[in-house]
Amino acid sequence: MEFFPPRTKDGATNLLHKFENMGAGGPLFCDITWHPAGHPESDEPTSCVTIADAMFNYIGLETMLHMTCCNMKTADINLHLERIKSKGIRNILALRGDPPVGQEDWEGNSDGFNYATDLVKHIRANFGDHFNICVAGYPNGHPDATSYEDDLVHLKEKVDAGSDFIITQLFFETADFVKYVQDSKAKGVHIPIIPGILPIQGFASLRHICKLGKMDVPDNIMKAIMPIKDNDEAIRNFGVDFAVKQCRELLDSGVVDGLHFYTLNREVATIAVLKQLGFWQEEPHKPVPWRVARRAEEIRPIFWSSRPQSYIHRTREWDEYPNGRWGDSSSPAFGDLKDYHIFYLKSRWSKVKLMPMWGNEIRSEKDVWEIFCCYLTGEKNRHGEIVKCLPWNDYEIEHDGETSLIKDRLLELNRMGVLTINSQPHANAESSTHKHLGWGDKGGYVFQKAYLEFFIDRKYLRNLVQTLAKSDYESVNFHIVNHDGSTDMTNCDKMEPVAVTWGVFPGREIVQPTVVDPVSFRVWKDEAFTIWLEKWARLYERTDESFKILQEIHDSHLLVNLVDNNFKGNCLFQLLEEVIRV
Amino acid sequence: MEFFPPRTKDGATNLLHKFENMGAGGPLFCDITWHPAGHPESDEPTSCVTIADAMFNYIGLETMLHMTCCNMKTADINLHLERIKSKGIRNILALRGDPPVGQEDWEGNSDGFNYATDLVKHIRANFGDHFNICVAGYPNGHPDATSYEDDLVHLKEKVDAGSDFIITQLFFETADFVKYVQDSKAKGVHIPIIPGILPIQGFASLRHICKLGKMDVPDNIMKAIMPIKDNDEAIRNFGVDFAVKQCRELLDSGVVDGLHFYTLNREVATIAVLKQLGFWQEEPHKPVPWRVARRAEEIRPIFWSSRPQSYIHRTREWDEYPNGRWGDSSSPAFGDLKDYHIFYLKSRWSKVKLMPMWGNEIRSEKDVWEIFCCYLTGEKNRHGEIVKCLPWNDYEIEHDGETSLIKDRLLELNRMGVLTINSQPHANAESSTHKHLGWGDKGGYVFQKAYLEFFIDRKYLRNLVQTLAKSDYESVNFHIVNHDGSTDMTNCDKMEPVAVTWGVFPGREIVQPTVVDPVSFRVWKDEAFTIWLEKWARLYERTDESFKILQEIHDSHLLVNLVDNNFKGNCLFQLLEEVIRV
Repeated sequence: MEFFPPRTKDGATNLLHKFENMGAGGPLFCDITWHPAGHPESDEPTSCVTIADAMFNYIGLETMLHMTCCNMKTADINLHLERIKSKGIRNILALRGDPPVGQEDWEGNSDGFNYATDLVKHIRANFGDHFNICVAGYPNGHPDATSYEDDLVHLKEKVDAGSDFIITQLFFETADFVKYVQDSKAKGVHIPIIPGILPIQGFASLRHICKLGKMDVPDNIMKAIMPIKDNDEAIRNFGVDFAVKQCRELLDSGVVDGLHFYTLNREVATIAVLKQLGFWQEEPHKPVPWRVARRAEEIRPIFWSSRPQSYIHRTREWDEYPNGRWGDSSSPAFGDLKDYHIFYLKSRWSKVKLMPMWGNEIRSEKDVWEIFCCYLTGEKNRHGEIVKCLPWNDYEIEHDGETSLIKDRLLELNRMGVLTINSQPHANAESSTHKHLGWGDKGGYVFQKAYLEFFIDRKYLRNLVQTLAKSDYESVNFHIVNHDGSTDMTNCDKMEPVAVTWGVFPGREIVQPTVVDPVSFRVWKDEAFTIWLEKWARLYERTDESFKILQEIHDSHLLVNLVDNNFKGNCLFQLLEEVIRV
Repeated sequence: MEFFPPRTKDGATNLLHKFENMGAGGPLFCDITWHPAGHPESDEPTSCVTIADAMFNYIGLETMLHMTCCNMKTADINLHLERIKSKGIRNILALRGDPPVGQEDWEGNSDGFNYATDLVKHIRANFGDHFNICVAGYPNGHPDATSYEDDLVHLKEKVDAGSDFIITQLFFETADFVKYVQDSKAKGVHIPIIPGILPIQGFASLRHICKLGKMDVPDNIMKAIMPIKDNDEAIRNFGVDFAVKQCRELLDSGVVDGLHFYTLNREVATIAVLKQLGFWQEEPHKPVPWRVARRAEEIRPIFWSSRPQSYIHRTREWDEYPNGRWGDSSSPAFGDLKDYHIFYLKSRWSKVKLMPMWGNEIRSEKDVWEIFCCYLTGEKNRHGEIVKCLPWNDYEIEHDGETSLIKDRLLELNRMGVLTINSQPHANAESSTHKHLGWGDKGGYVFQKAYLEFFIDRKYLRNLVQTLAKSDYESVNFHIVNHDGSTDMTNCDKMEPVAVTWGVFPGREIVQPTVVDPVSFRVWKDEAFTIWLEKWARLYERTDESFKILQEIHDSHLLVNLVDNNFKGNCLFQLLEEVIRV
């Protein structure tokens, strides 16, 4: 699926959330077009490299970045490539690009980058096999080529220079594509050629795109859409139907290895096409139990499980993600806890949307409890709003997620003022393909120790400590801290992490991707407490009663986490009910 | 328990096996006396440093080495200390030692080592806290001290120089020891004082030891043993009774932190005393599932599990034992497979004892099968001998070991010519204190994947491969190799190890101490095949039929290992029965 960099920062934030929606369907990769004028060398949110970085590292999608070379210096190209490499991106679509505006008679570049072939050669010469290189194919001939035959010669050159696969320009006739594949093969091109599909989404955009590609809209399509050209919905329906038909023909032709979609940054049409084709994976199987995975990362502390982007941001300087062990020597420093408003971490919700979710006005602590309860139940709060996120939880509770297994018991706790922000049920040798709990290769077994993390009024501290000391609960590990660290109690080792999620797979070592790590917890607790103020209280004026109540909770509450080491059951709910009811 | 270095290589080998017997009772540590004349700087089997190295690294006992300084140069002392440190030994009993023979009027050493105090100071100054330092105490006064009082002054000096604890010279009167502790305390000595106990084992040895310590045998003891002085058994019984009574008095006195035994390199008397006192731990709990543990080692390939000394020998050059991961980067080179006759690896059995166990004469392959079967059943072979070990298995099968759980099924296989040399039953969340399968801290759960390793005639290769391909057995990983590697089949990853033993413990990461590592297996298979020839066939003449039969098995058999990844059960026996019966 291809996207292009948006023009504004808000547009970029919205696009990231679209990536999440599109990523849910399990695409092989997504790609971002190259905009030389959009400062690709910068960290601006609208830079194509920034967007690609976010797509790859913060959303967890396999990413291909386009890159053009026309009018570029060798040194700049190398800088771009090094930077792309440093982000971890391994796929580049190499293009010539359009000549600078006003220089349509441009004839060549002093550093010799005159064709996509030159860029492919340069990448292979300087980066070896580090990047997968894709090039463009033109089933209807390249607009600047002297002939269809001439363009095939150029394609062969690009392939010989070291390309790995080809994505085609959009086209409308299946027969054109099939012929193109056959002609390419005849010329000796034996790498995959992936058809580029445009689900038509509007009359104006269709004409604009065809103009950019210097191609005409075929008569049959013009004839079909002219009568409905002012009815957006009708055109979209036509576009979806047309694309589905086109894709089925292509797949039936037997020469197609995949489908590439020009999304125009809109998700509805492409998702509709994929669903009709049966290619939308409603429940993509997770390779690890986390929502957002980063390559080469094998283990993570549980605390950020509902804030994966924050975790990635705070560990972005780590050269290596701890693999296998999370001991004293391998807990590197976390990034500073400061800017909640940086691009990657921006909530998808504006203040205007958040206020009614989290309370236009908070009159008591119980109002806060109610927000937590509504988030769990999915029922409307008293402003008539569904609470789709909490300051600590970026995502809605999934119906088929593991939290659904313990939702009712979490609700009981929140109704009593035990404000849960993280949890997992226990799992005792469940199948790795289990609907709620599964992850990793099939044929494996997954395990979890029950985990609960919550804020609770410090008036319960004594009960909590006494209850934890009972022999009924000797299987429980705990941490109890307050906002300034003046309360800081634990029965855990100071350095050694506790594995809370692990898997046993055929032919492998034991994998233990999630740990309760005491060192990370000290870092996380500052973030968890600060969120009361920086993400919630700051929605109100400092003098508002709402602000004061949230400040009061921040000051008076303990942050507690509990692990039940007996993975065959879960005594944590019973423990907390005892604490509250004593 | 104190031992002294033997005079011959055979004596050293025997002593190592005694260490194993004594170690089974769970002593806090054992110690080895220092013999300056026995070339402590050398690698000779009789050197006290070699013995201490073997005790610590090959038998796995916490080890204290004595060291004397009288008549030694600073440079030599440093060399000894560095070498002791390099072996991993952390405990030293610092002594002055006896003046050189013929120099009984010796007055001092040019390098300033005149008293144990000088050695204590030197160790502390040059090695900081690396070593625990013990010094000797003399409840009846040091023979060379001018008075009991004078000796206490020297004791205080030794303690002030940096000693950690005191072990006393032998004594016979409990009151003497209690007074000595009280007098030492009054002098400001506040470190533990451990009484040295001599279980009397014979009349001559008692007199000899007392003479060495320049003390008299008390009258009451002389009176008791003179009538039985020629009856060794009666003296030993007296010695055990006397020591038990003495130990009980000492323990009742309340001033004793432990007991130190002068074993005189004999195990019977000391074990008898410990058993009567209730201090003999019949089943010491294993911290890891291996028989012999080495410090800082967290993971091991399964192949050497019945030959732990060989494993330690072949990995002795490793600076660090793989911890947590056993991946490509951390599989260091194994030592060469060459000398089966080096000291550490010497069998406790002479050729004369081995021949009747493994067959004075082997007339057919079935004779060999019978040896394997007898080893499993514990029944006598046709020479009337119990087969206490096999060339691949240094130890008898333990009644309460894990092998006992699958002994009957192993026997069925061996009766059909599937010659098993290693195995483990499956374990699905058994208690870490489980009688047969438990290891590690209490409160944990241990798991195992069923494992089988065996030799089998290559005529079964086709059946084996076809049976492994059945869907019933898709949970099985296998390696199949022959002696020269011309057959080499596996469905495992070439580098990634398969965890076969792991544990889940409160407040900890998952521990996975035993793996089937494909890299190690390539090393092990050479050892496993060579053992047919080097440990078994070489008992016979090359021209003997027995030799030829063993050579033929070596040449014609496959070495196979199987892991059932489904730890909830064990399909391996059924699989092999299918292979044989097709």
